[in-house]
Amino acid sequence: MDKKIQIGLLGIGTVGSGVLETILNHVSTLEIKKIAEKDPAKIGQYLHLPQGIFTDNAEELINDTDIKIFVELIGGINPALGLIKKAIQNKKHIVTANKELIAKHGKELFELAEKNNVVILYEAAVGGGIPIIMPLKQSLSANKITGMAGILNGTTNYILTKMEQEGSSFEEVLKEAQKRGYAEADPTADMQGYDAAYKIAILASLAFNKNVDINSVYKEGIVGISPVDIGYAKEFGYKIKLIGLVQNGEIENIDVRVHPMLVPEEHPISGIDGVLNAIVIEGEPVSRVMFSGPGAGKFPTASSVVGDILSLAHEISVTDYPMPMMRFSGAGKDAVLKDISETNNKYYIRVTAVNTPGVMGELGTICGRNSINLSGIVQKEMIEDGSAMIVLLTELAREKDVQKALGEMGENPKIKEINNLIRVME
Amino acid sequence: MDKKIQIGLLGIGTVGSGVLETILNHVSTLEIKKIAEKDPAKIGQYLHLPQGIFTDNAEELINDTDIKIFVELIGGINPALGLIKKAIQNKKHIVTANKELIAKHGKELFELAEKNNVVILYEAAVGGGIPIIMPLKQSLSANKITGMAGILNGTTNYILTKMEQEGSSFEEVLKEAQKRGYAEADPTADMQGYDAAYKIAILASLAFNKNVDINSVYKEGIVGISPVDIGYAKEFGYKIKLIGLVQNGEIENIDVRVHPMLVPEEHPISGIDGVLNAIVIEGEPVSRVMFSGPGAGKFPTASSVVGDILSLAHEISVTDYPMPMMRFSGAGKDAVLKDISETNNKYYIRVTAVNTPGVMGELGTICGRNSINLSGIVQKEMIEDGSAMIVLLTELAREKDVQKALGEMGENPKIKEINNLIRVME
Repeated sequence: MDKKIQIGLLGIGTVGSGVLETILNHVSTLEIKKIAEKDPAKIGQYLHLPQGIFTDNAEELINDTDIKIFVELIGGINPALGLIKKAIQNKKHIVTANKELIAKHGKELFELAEKNNVVILYEAAVGGGIPIIMPLKQSLSANKITGMAGILNGTTNYILTKMEQEGSSFEEVLKEAQKRGYAEADPTADMQGYDAAYKIAILASLAFNKNVDINSVYKEGIVGISPVDIGYAKEFGYKIKLIGLVQNGEIENIDVRVHPMLVPEEHPISGIDGVLNAIVIEGEPVSRVMFSGPGAGKFPTASSVVGDILSLAHEISVTDYPMPMMRFSGAGKDAVLKDISETNNKYYIRVTAVNTPGVMGELGTICGRNSINLSGIVQKEMIEDGSAMIVLLTELAREKDVQKALGEMGENPKIKEINNLIRVME
Repeated sequence: MDKKIQIGLLGIGTVGSGVLETILNHVSTLEIKKIAEKDPAKIGQYLHLPQGIFTDNAEELINDTDIKIFVELIGGINPALGLIKKAIQNKKHIVTANKELIAKHGKELFELAEKNNVVILYEAAVGGGIPIIMPLKQSLSANKITGMAGILNGTTNYILTKMEQEGSSFEEVLKEAQKRGYAEADPTADMQGYDAAYKIAILASLAFNKNVDINSVYKEGIVGISPVDIGYAKEFGYKIKLIGLVQNGEIENIDVRVHPMLVPEEHPISGIDGVLNAIVIEGEPVSRVMFSGPGAGKFPTASSVVGDILSLAHEISVTDYPMPMMRFSGAGKDAVLKDISETNNKYYIRVTAVNTPGVMGELGTICGRNSINLSGIVQKEMIEDGSAMIVLLTELAREKDVQKALGEMGENPKIKEINNLIRVME
């Protein structure tokens, strides 16, 4: 590049300050023309910078014709969505780490960008510092993607790992994670699976070149996982992980969902512990590749944001038509998702039953008449009140059959409680 | 793309036929204009294709002005080097899987390509189906790379894994691997570390944007690894892997090498078994990311080759100046490599000693006077002739000090044999 490409940064919170510091420390080919930030305390951390580059008005960036790349790092929908739209209409390229925005409004944004001949890059929106969006668009682009499985949320993975290591309850570990800053004060988006759902929806959209409606993605969080389940899973050779899953049948609808799973210990993703993320991609002809690394954090996320900015800057220094592979080209088509009730899975089911002869038989009978083959049924332990804890492991079964069987178990007087149902990765 | 980009394929051996079949089965945006192949048996597998596209003369591809991308899949230096040069001079872009060629002649090829305004892509040259070249050039481009460690050769990893699982000797497992087609009839390039050295040299060149002279890369293969070492390593919590290593000190020369290492079981790369490959990249600001998957094979390699072709085809459909990040931009500068004798490592040293009191003390004394701190010295077992097998584990020590200590041990009458020295990953 002969001339420095000028960029505007919107927001210098955690990720934004990481991006700013990375550019100042490592990158000589970019010029930060303006930074929009409303919080004086955040600006106060950069008193060594010429203060004229700061503004509390994002419109100044949007209206600055020198700025070629608008870098949005404030997160959330409002005001990010409106500002990005205006920036696109002013012919600025966009780099963002905003998974919620891309998952919910990707379709309209990509269409608007295409109309205005600009590009939106969002490597940091999935997997933090792990390169995954660009590899899907480029090196893996010859593949028919058949499946993806990801640990896409570091906070829940940290909690599940701690629960496993310490035998503590979800509530205890969450409290500790909040104290250490690993979990938000309001942890709903992470714990209920929303964050992972945004990410798997973005990956599925890319893999199949169709728009995946985030509202159609089935999600379950980790709130219902107990140390008892983690312990039993371990005995059977599994770890419990919150998994973003994509499966694409030959003729069927795309199956996209987020829920906890028992992952076999020999599966490469089972070794991904703590705040790490990992994504396994299966396709033809590649077979299976895995990407892992830090899924969040100030600096890892900055690595992906600045990587996007540099890729774009190189592009626009040589062409007015940045590479079409950087675009979301299937913005127009909507994916039809498979309903969870139509999916086939293996299951781990834990129930509390009256400890009388014949209970195991009745559980087996209920499963049998609902076309569910069991691979195991084990009485795990006696509870103080004389009840028995029983775990069932099934072969592949249809979700709606399993839900029907659960209903029948719930009505059976010998079954005191259905404690948990967790799907099992093959 | 409005118009199909036309390509020429040189060679339909294992990888070439994978590329051909992947394009025929999955890709509708490319047109294979000509295929150069001398072996009628290979052409005979594609009787359903119009036979006019086959030629036994590679020059026909080079002189065909319709062909925009020349895909070299014959491997080796001659005639690949000469043909690629001619193709570049005829303004054709190059896609290749040829690691030996890129490692040995990358510098001159990249310079020639730059002069002719064409691009050379070689994702498949490292890690087979694993995307690693493009991520280093793009998503990770903001990083100062501080280190890389890779299992880059599937054949040696398969052999080490089998030795570990079965307790068999190197020779036995190699013979079996040759029988099953996992190892070449002449396994030298794999076993002696040449193949892994090509790959780590290519990665180091990219990471530091300097030309790494393949002849300066230190290499040791796995021929000297015995089941005894693998067993002891396991007891100490390590696996033995053939590792391509890059380390970049703040002010020092770049350290690039290939040799077996004891890898701690908690390191993510230690779980990469069989024919799989993996590359760990450490940088600022990303911290650490890992890529893993099939490092070789007809179809995984084709995934990367066709990914490159598609990326290039999209580029050249919109610009006469394909993206500069796709180029090797540091072709002019030569990296200065650190000599192995100047590196610092932890070591595993196994010796056979006369079983008399004071041997352990003498070993300790030799280490001490050569500035080597031991973290452990253990007598492992008695051998039939009454000798003792002793394993030393060191703290970080300078290679030349360790080699000097080994020399002194060799001269000590109580030390009957120095069986092995293996470096230990931290």
